[in-house]
Amino acid sequence: MKVGILGGTGPQGRGLATRLAASGHEVLIGSRDADRAEAVAAEIAQPDSSGRIVGVGNSDAAAAELVIVSVPYHGHADLLSSLATELAGKIVVDCVNPLGFDERGPFPLRVAAGSAAQEAQQLLPDSTVIAAFHHVSAVLLNDPTVDHFADDVLVLGEDREAVAVVCELVTAIPGARGVYAGRLRNAGQVEALAANLIAINRRYQTHAGLTITGVS
Amino acid sequence: MKVGILGGTGPQGRGLATRLAASGHEVLIGSRDADRAEAVAAEIAQPDSSGRIVGVGNSDAAAAELVIVSVPYHGHADLLSSLATELAGKIVVDCVNPLGFDERGPFPLRVAAGSAAQEAQQLLPDSTVIAAFHHVSAVLLNDPTVDHFADDVLVLGEDREAVAVVCELVTAIPGARGVYAGRLRNAGQVEALAANLIAINRRYQTHAGLTITGVS
Repeated sequence: MKVGILGGTGPQGRGLATRLAASGHEVLIGSRDADRAEAVAAEIAQPDSSGRIVGVGNSDAAAAELVIVSVPYHGHADLLSSLATELAGKIVVDCVNPLGFDERGPFPLRVAAGSAAQEAQQLLPDSTVIAAFHHVSAVLLNDPTVDHFADDVLVLGEDREAVAVVCELVTAIPGARGVYAGRLRNAGQVEALAANLIAINRRYQTHAGLTITGVS
Repeated sequence: MKVGILGGTGPQGRGLATRLAASGHEVLIGSRDADRAEAVAAEIAQPDSSGRIVGVGNSDAAAAELVIVSVPYHGHADLLSSLATELAGKIVVDCVNPLGFDERGPFPLRVAAGSAAQEAQQLLPDSTVIAAFHHVSAVLLNDPTVDHFADDVLVLGEDREAVAVVCELVTAIPGARGVYAGRLRNAGQVEALAANLIAINRRYQTHAGLTITGVS
């Protein structure tokens, strides 16, 4: 599959691009700055990947078959609004965690739509928005020595087929599993839970993720 | 330790009471109706438990050393306001998940304080409120054939010592582990995540829980 990643030059975007290419997908890393995207693509491309990584502008990345949104929450709405035409008819995977930080650490930002994913669906009425990939550590995704994840990826959405496509995409992360975790209106707490994982990382000096028990 | 459970006659309260007594704690099941609490205590008491289960009114349960709040969210604020004096100086463990249900399933209720736990702390300024036990299946807690949980219990609070006491209490659930997961201002998404677990339960016909990866 040809997968676009909007904001693909950030830590999470790079990590997902590397893993998706390693599992055979063609990845279009998008950035506001196509030159920067090209440089990052050249930097993270692995000679032994079965897939390819190409750096392009965000609007070209939005031309892929499936598009992942991996941008800071600041800028999320503006970027998606500007790409509504390109993204029409596609599966758009939102993995944005709207968080703030202050001297006491991370906290969830209030999002008028309820969640970044719901905001994306409002801005992209002709796309099928799925929420996923909120909790997989970017550090581990980018670490070439990590060849196995024990993590589950919570996948939320209204469309069963699109959820299944994204659950399948999760297998690009070796060892990870996609688990359906509800409708988009239940995405807000999944996004916000990233703040708890950051608190866990700080207390236990780790790169935490999560798994769901009882689903085999 | 003597542990009180406000609303201890509900499914989660019964389950926690059974497990706490089995691990040697003395448990005061509280209810608005002390007779009903006595009946439930008699029903769930195990002859081979090392601890005891006693049924009392909620205000007597609030006299325990540590008090768990396990009531429906509707009624949470009124009950805690009425017991502020009894609960002063104590660790109060809030495990309330403010959820609504409609034809599309569960969804998080908006809580003005941010979370049930923060609401509890506002209503109980002289208590140390800790949020915990949101995700352990009441069905499994009450199933005597279940003698091992692979679940983690997310424990949130401002006070390190109180967090440690509650993490220790978690060991009453065989196999479970308490993991510090942030300050109380990050409790809202932990409570709301119960909606996702319910969605998972429905899709996969299971009793889901969660574990944190990367914490050993």
